Amino acid sequence: MKVGGRQYRTIWVGEDGQSVALIDQTKLPHAFIVASWSTLDDAVTGIERMQVRGAPLIGVAAAYGVCLALRRDAGDGALTDACRRLSATRPTAVNLRAALTRSMERLAPIAPSDRVAAAYAFAAELADEDVAGNRAIGEHGLGLLRAIAGVVRGTRRLEVMTHCNAGWLATVDFGTALAPVYAAHDSGIPVHVWVSETRPRNQGASLTAWELAQHGVPYTAIVDSAAGHLMQRGDVDVVLVGTDRTTAAGVVANKIGTYMKALAARDCAIPFYVAAPSSSIDWTVQDGRDIPIEERSAAEVTHVTGRSATGQTEAVQLFPDGVVASNYGFDVTPAKFVTALITERGVCQASREGLLGLFPERDWRMKTAGATA
Amino acid sequence: MKVGGRQYRTIWVGEDGQSVALIDQTKLPHAFIVASWSTLDDAVTGIERMQVRGAPLIGVAAAYGVCLALRRDAGDGALTDACRRLSATRPTAVNLRAALTRSMERLAPIAPSDRVAAAYAFAAELADEDVAGNRAIGEHGLGLLRAIAGVVRGTRRLEVMTHCNAGWLATVDFGTALAPVYAAHDSGIPVHVWVSETRPRNQGASLTAWELAQHGVPYTAIVDSAAGHLMQRGDVDVVLVGTDRTTAAGVVANKIGTYMKALAARDCAIPFYVAAPSSSIDWTVQDGRDIPIEERSAAEVTHVTGRSATGQTEAVQLFPDGVVASNYGFDVTPAKFVTALITERGVCQASREGLLGLFPERDWRMKTAGATA
Repeated sequence: MKVGGRQYRTIWVGEDGQSVALIDQTKLPHAFIVASWSTLDDAVTGIERMQVRGAPLIGVAAAYGVCLALRRDAGDGALTDACRRLSATRPTAVNLRAALTRSMERLAPIAPSDRVAAAYAFAAELADEDVAGNRAIGEHGLGLLRAIAGVVRGTRRLEVMTHCNAGWLATVDFGTALAPVYAAHDSGIPVHVWVSETRPRNQGASLTAWELAQHGVPYTAIVDSAAGHLMQRGDVDVVLVGTDRTTAAGVVANKIGTYMKALAARDCAIPFYVAAPSSSIDWTVQDGRDIPIEERSAAEVTHVTGRSATGQTEAVQLFPDGVVASNYGFDVTPAKFVTALITERGVCQASREGLLGLFPERDWRMKTAGATA
Repeated sequence: MKVGGRQYRTIWVGEDGQSVALIDQTKLPHAFIVASWSTLDDAVTGIERMQVRGAPLIGVAAAYGVCLALRRDAGDGALTDACRRLSATRPTAVNLRAALTRSMERLAPIAPSDRVAAAYAFAAELADEDVAGNRAIGEHGLGLLRAIAGVVRGTRRLEVMTHCNAGWLATVDFGTALAPVYAAHDSGIPVHVWVSETRPRNQGASLTAWELAQHGVPYTAIVDSAAGHLMQRGDVDVVLVGTDRTTAAGVVANKIGTYMKALAARDCAIPFYVAAPSSSIDWTVQDGRDIPIEERSAAEVTHVTGRSATGQTEAVQLFPDGVVASNYGFDVTPAKFVTALITERGVCQASREGLLGLFPERDWRMKTAGATA
């Protein structure tokens, strides 16, 4: 996508051919800064600090983290250690684990002397896979949006609600949940997006709002709690969100607050679609209770970071001193509340049958997982 | 309730016997400041700026606003004008309108020379009524909490979730939704409260957290979006909220976000109680669609106010420049999602029948309202 007219991906190899360049998402929306990672530590810290975030993007970022680790030491121990450290950074998104498993499968059999080149090649391949998949999700989702836009056409614009950021900043390019929105906008469908701020880290406010504005898609800012009321009022035609981990039964773990948006959509008879690239599907898990839910620091809840009147980035404290806070990063939306999943292979029911219809090659894995469960 | 060991109400007549003293709720939780109103303008601005807020409290505050107006001019025109200006400050809470209607009924027939004294007497009466009603709500709600605590007793503390602030700061004293919590705590039931920050104005973070801490009730801070996940996990036994306007059919307008909490409670089979003093009941309205929903400034959504690292109160900007925001202050929870209403006369079903069972004297009014609807 474009930033100020120039084409960008969210992550790429630096001009030196070795360092990893990335849009520093902790600085948006008030500053556009390209950061650089040179070591495994940079990658581990960067993923933890959420310089990059979004399930698809952290998978790719982890693959680049392996490259940086191997540059220093390409031995078996270093490879295993890098994957272990990167894997521990964010527990919920399965893309991270999947990317690292594939890295290991690809790199472990190779002689250490060839591993660095192979690691960069693999990371680039993963990035291109993500871009192609998201482009396809955009096309499949566009079909759904066209159908809904057909109903409201002439009376008003198509009203989309999303949550958190599942746009191009959550991926290498194009986005997942926002890919259909960009496709609709680019094809001339008048579309408007309700952007919920997404406390505690406000990825809606800082990232979704920013990238929609960069692309010229009109949006309106709301607090997270306003979602249900807008749906009740009839101001929302469709809800489109991403996913950090989708189980083989179509259960969706996504940013905290997704579950209540799904409940409101169901109560108001509004379609609730989840853009789920296959990289986000955990074929080894059926039940949402088996998804590990990341808990983050209390300070994210007790404080908010934004731009002060003097232009500085500042954290202000909301709660009284001495407060205890709970900070689960994700919640679980039962499959029954998901109207459909949008994958790179097409749209399917959020169920084992739906997913296997699109990914029949996964059938044996599910049986294996079921047998050992 | 006590602040630093000293007994306070939220609003009272100043030592001069004329000015109105109040806890300035825009300064909490980081500073405890007693403000003073001397004129109608002070009251109008103070209610708009939310120095006082909470449906029961703004009713009483408006009655004191009438006193201040009449001190300057006790004529018929001034009385009508004061009621009109005060009524326009906050459209959703019906307590405001009800208090002003009663003020007019009480004061209009009186000679202007006697109005000032009568206005102060009426405001004090309204304040005492509120306190007595909330005390009764606390007792009735305690019965419900005892029953739930009996089920979990011995295994863990009673887990209550609330939203916004329906504590003593939302009233003259005791609170509505928190009155049963204080009663439970004081009677030795181990109780813990999940406090959602309540964006955009964070009354949960700044007021509920503060008053629970002052009283020694343990609580945990969460973002609004986390409510559903905690209910899904089984970490919530009961949801208790207030109401800004309850229709004669038991529909509840309350702080934005209440509706989605009610949906999650229903999905997780958790009781969802609304503490509804009769002053919050609008007997002239049945349908939630007939409740006016206040829209507030975009800046409340795009910015957050808190305490900076240097101890200053500061607003930080979350969204990019140029953002458009929507800011409905309240939403509507259908009666079917409300397990019961807790009124000062007892607990009833959230329905016309339930309410008339407790308030039979309202029956003719409803018929009148129905006939003219």
